[in-house]
Amino acid sequence: MIFVCPRPPERCGRIIRRKKLQMSAQNDRGTPRPTLTEVARVAGVSVGLASMCLTGAPGPAERTREHVREVARRLGYRPDKAASLLARSTIRRIGVVFSLRQALHAQIVEDLYRAALAQKYELLLSAATEDHPARTAAEHLLDSRCQAIILVSSRPQRDAISAAAEQVPVVLLGSSTDSSEVSSIQVNGYSGVCQAVRYLRSAGHTRIVFADAAEALGSTDRLIGYRSAMAEIGLGDLTRIVAGGETFQSGVQAASRLAREPNLPTAVIAHNDECAAGLIFGFKIRGVQVPDEVSVVGFDDSGFAWQSGLIMTTLHQDVTQIAALAVAEATRRIDSAEATTHPAQTRITPTLRIRDSSGPCPDLRLAAVSS
Amino acid sequence: MIFVCPRPPERCGRIIRRKKLQMSAQNDRGTPRPTLTEVARVAGVSVGLASMCLTGAPGPAERTREHVREVARRLGYRPDKAASLLARSTIRRIGVVFSLRQALHAQIVEDLYRAALAQKYELLLSAATEDHPARTAAEHLLDSRCQAIILVSSRPQRDAISAAAEQVPVVLLGSSTDSSEVSSIQVNGYSGVCQAVRYLRSAGHTRIVFADAAEALGSTDRLIGYRSAMAEIGLGDLTRIVAGGETFQSGVQAASRLAREPNLPTAVIAHNDECAAGLIFGFKIRGVQVPDEVSVVGFDDSGFAWQSGLIMTTLHQDVTQIAALAVAEATRRIDSAEATTHPAQTRITPTLRIRDSSGPCPDLRLAAVSS
Repeated sequence: MIFVCPRPPERCGRIIRRKKLQMSAQNDRGTPRPTLTEVARVAGVSVGLASMCLTGAPGPAERTREHVREVARRLGYRPDKAASLLARSTIRRIGVVFSLRQALHAQIVEDLYRAALAQKYELLLSAATEDHPARTAAEHLLDSRCQAIILVSSRPQRDAISAAAEQVPVVLLGSSTDSSEVSSIQVNGYSGVCQAVRYLRSAGHTRIVFADAAEALGSTDRLIGYRSAMAEIGLGDLTRIVAGGETFQSGVQAASRLAREPNLPTAVIAHNDECAAGLIFGFKIRGVQVPDEVSVVGFDDSGFAWQSGLIMTTLHQDVTQIAALAVAEATRRIDSAEATTHPAQTRITPTLRIRDSSGPCPDLRLAAVSS
Repeated sequence: MIFVCPRPPERCGRIIRRKKLQMSAQNDRGTPRPTLTEVARVAGVSVGLASMCLTGAPGPAERTREHVREVARRLGYRPDKAASLLARSTIRRIGVVFSLRQALHAQIVEDLYRAALAQKYELLLSAATEDHPARTAAEHLLDSRCQAIILVSSRPQRDAISAAAEQVPVVLLGSSTDSSEVSSIQVNGYSGVCQAVRYLRSAGHTRIVFADAAEALGSTDRLIGYRSAMAEIGLGDLTRIVAGGETFQSGVQAASRLAREPNLPTAVIAHNDECAAGLIFGFKIRGVQVPDEVSVVGFDDSGFAWQSGLIMTTLHQDVTQIAALAVAEATRRIDSAEATTHPAQTRITPTLRIRDSSGPCPDLRLAAVSS
């Protein structure tokens, strides 16, 4: 038997093949009484979530709760006591969707564990991979009765966000969305790049290039910061954007291209630390000295800030603070049904950490030598 | 009220603070009837697992099932139908414990997703971090009704392994254990390093150094491979082990130390690709040419094999094959209660991929030039 879920495909999107009609008991008229599994199926939610909605457990959004209750009423569902108790014994559990292979995500997840343990919450993880989109990852976490989802993303995941936000509180880390139901915590890329430009100018640099990662989330924000700050300090005409990418390898390639130019820029601001580490490495193996000939500034202060053989000047994101805020926001919304309608949008300003990959503009040094 | 779990501490190890006595109904004598939560608590297992044991769902080991049934009998537990049905609607779910920040683990987890989806299993992840030991990670997965645990480890995790193996099938990836209840799939480090030594010898090298990672799992195996192969090719007297470590940074440091020596070795075999990438980078920034002056061989063929600006000669682990085997072994043991007593131990032989970080011994080249 094949049942088509009554929700529109973009909200549910799956056909449920029902192996066996499960009946817990006969109702008063002797016909099969619907089980919680039935209610969940018809409502297009997981069994865990249906149970949370019907028992009043914290977590689900009010409109999901209403929808499930309505379906239960319509089907004539009467809860069994044991099932309700099972549901109420739910462990306090937050789900995290993240990307494998990103140094910053790994750090964030580590700090999310720390913050969640302090609040006596368990974390469960589900990775977004090529075969396993963020939306599926979020569904698996909901099936495991997570009461909120924290989505650590570096790419927009609109469908995953809206599907999860219909069911439980969602906190986005590293990005934002126009949905009014979703909380978000992101770094202020605009402010970060402005700080980097002003610092480099104060060190005498004028030929300051921005190595962009066009497809990455947050790249527009950083690019606007670069343009604004360059204009503000009177260098609007020297603005130059090159393709930098998000990876070590793309940074090495960008350095290769720049190193071949007759008139090397004196400073490069990279989209992230991976790219900056690649730039530093790429310059070095082509005999361009960092920071004597060119300064390189990263973004994130992730593990990569130490992987170029130089300790990198970068925009430090306080990952511990971000993780603590994320868990606090998730638990606030789990604990207060009221608050689900008022998600918080937070922007954290990064701080510039000046280390070994940047220094005075070489033109200034030459001038000092020749005078 | 504080209840001490009746299992010995090394098997359960936690004092459960009971917030509220949960009662589902009164029994025939009017005293509270124990709930599934009670049974689970007294048996020292999760609610999900207790339910699986009592309903006969596949997954739990026979002796766990017996233990839970015995506790249920002792407490006078009578299952409610709805609770049993909830348990039987269990989704097919495998839990994975892994380490964040390891490139190879990220690859393995990606491939586990691919393999699990093909078998129509969901994966749930729980990371082992400093604050969140592997044992806790495994417990959270069991609480979420995972029917088997795949433990991807680079350090021994005896307590986590034995605690989980008492409850569900466990498959260790990357290591093995002496427990007869645990399946394992690991790479043959001995064979891998032997291949590397023989290849380097055939390219004329004699001063072949092994950069060891003393604390890492599998390091002994690789070290023995190095010693045996060196002895076999008549270079037993030239055996030399230096501290290499497992990270990019430790590789950079090892290269620094080696580059200062008057008589540089002509080849270095590293414990893993991270260390090898650090060695390549460290040599390059000190002006030592790779591979012209020194050949470097990594191990794993992880993402790091491409992050040293050179495509690295390394021992390729077929991660896709390993992941598929792990999922196949987990599902075999879930599906066949009988098979839980016959876990499989598998060793995969890596294959040497000769790329740009290794070449002929420089002494040979000099000889060719001077003749």
